[in-house]
Amino acid sequence: MIPEPIRKLVDAFSRLPGVGPKTASRLVFFLLRTSEETLAQTLAEALQNLRAGIDYCPTCFNIMEAERSQCMVCADPDRKKSLICVVEDPMDVLALERTSAFQGRYHVLHGALSPIEGIGPEDLHISELLERVQNDDVEEVILATNPNMEGDATAMYLRQQLHPHDVRITRLARGLPMGGDLEYADQNTLLRALMGRQEMG
Amino acid sequence: MIPEPIRKLVDAFSRLPGVGPKTASRLVFFLLRTSEETLAQTLAEALQNLRAGIDYCPTCFNIMEAERSQCMVCADPDRKKSLICVVEDPMDVLALERTSAFQGRYHVLHGALSPIEGIGPEDLHISELLERVQNDDVEEVILATNPNMEGDATAMYLRQQLHPHDVRITRLARGLPMGGDLEYADQNTLLRALMGRQEMG
Repeated sequence: MIPEPIRKLVDAFSRLPGVGPKTASRLVFFLLRTSEETLAQTLAEALQNLRAGIDYCPTCFNIMEAERSQCMVCADPDRKKSLICVVEDPMDVLALERTSAFQGRYHVLHGALSPIEGIGPEDLHISELLERVQNDDVEEVILATNPNMEGDATAMYLRQQLHPHDVRITRLARGLPMGGDLEYADQNTLLRALMGRQEMG
Repeated sequence: MIPEPIRKLVDAFSRLPGVGPKTASRLVFFLLRTSEETLAQTLAEALQNLRAGIDYCPTCFNIMEAERSQCMVCADPDRKKSLICVVEDPMDVLALERTSAFQGRYHVLHGALSPIEGIGPEDLHISELLERVQNDDVEEVILATNPNMEGDATAMYLRQQLHPHDVRITRLARGLPMGGDLEYADQNTLLRALMGRQEMG
């Protein structure tokens, strides 16, 4: 009953995370109905240019435009080579850059250790990190993997691997999120906030 | 800081209804990360085929594959020509077809009257409906426009226009939705349910 071109697009949209068949068909009928005749075309072209136009920085594995030889952070001489922040994903780099507070460089692992999903150290860019630490006079490595089981396991593993090198190893602070309400904080967050309490001077 | 191909796709996704910049970038990074290498390509092709592959039925204005000469309902000799259900959008046809209870044909207005948005009778497929009623021995027209202000106004207008023709005019029943809870029904729904109460025999 549903015309083939519509069904195909609904199927494709449904494969995106958080998009069910209902949302997918709402999107398709919006594209059919909208007076922005070019939106479907614009989307199609942007999708086609995605993989072709994106490459990974050979140093830190962050995303970059394919025609560059290194990412904008690694290309910036003002960013400290001696400070490396290790993250799981390129989106984490964007989040940290939004704070405008980090003056060092990044290293993107592209994932976290997960025995359940069969992701081991050799699946992440860990050997390249150790090489950088050895060769680049790195003074501090901030382990900014996610504050969850996989992220913690990855940070523990990295600490072990980095230990023989003469480098300071830190992890992002754990505690109550800004604007949060103590009453609604989960037990583990509250426990970490208590354990990590800071002097008010 | 964000590579151009990613920014462009985030912008395009953000123009879809219900997709904000955060959801859009989640989708883009999913497409970059996913091992389904072909998903971005599949989506791009499906989008490009959307407008080219879809046309509107010249009789009822429902969507159909472009290579057809009429939609599947109008092409089906088993569907009663004497019964027409008038809806606002092609999605409404799909919803009614899912009930498997309607044996007649459709007429898709492609919108509803809305003075605020400047949509008048000449912007909808109303003259074509009146022509069908005149020429096709239509016995009943079901006005299945949405149960809201625009839909009601459109139904009222159509009733007026259809009045001179010798045809039964009906509107979908209003009342409590199935599985609903009387306590949570809004005042207007409850009022309509009370006014439209039915004999239990």
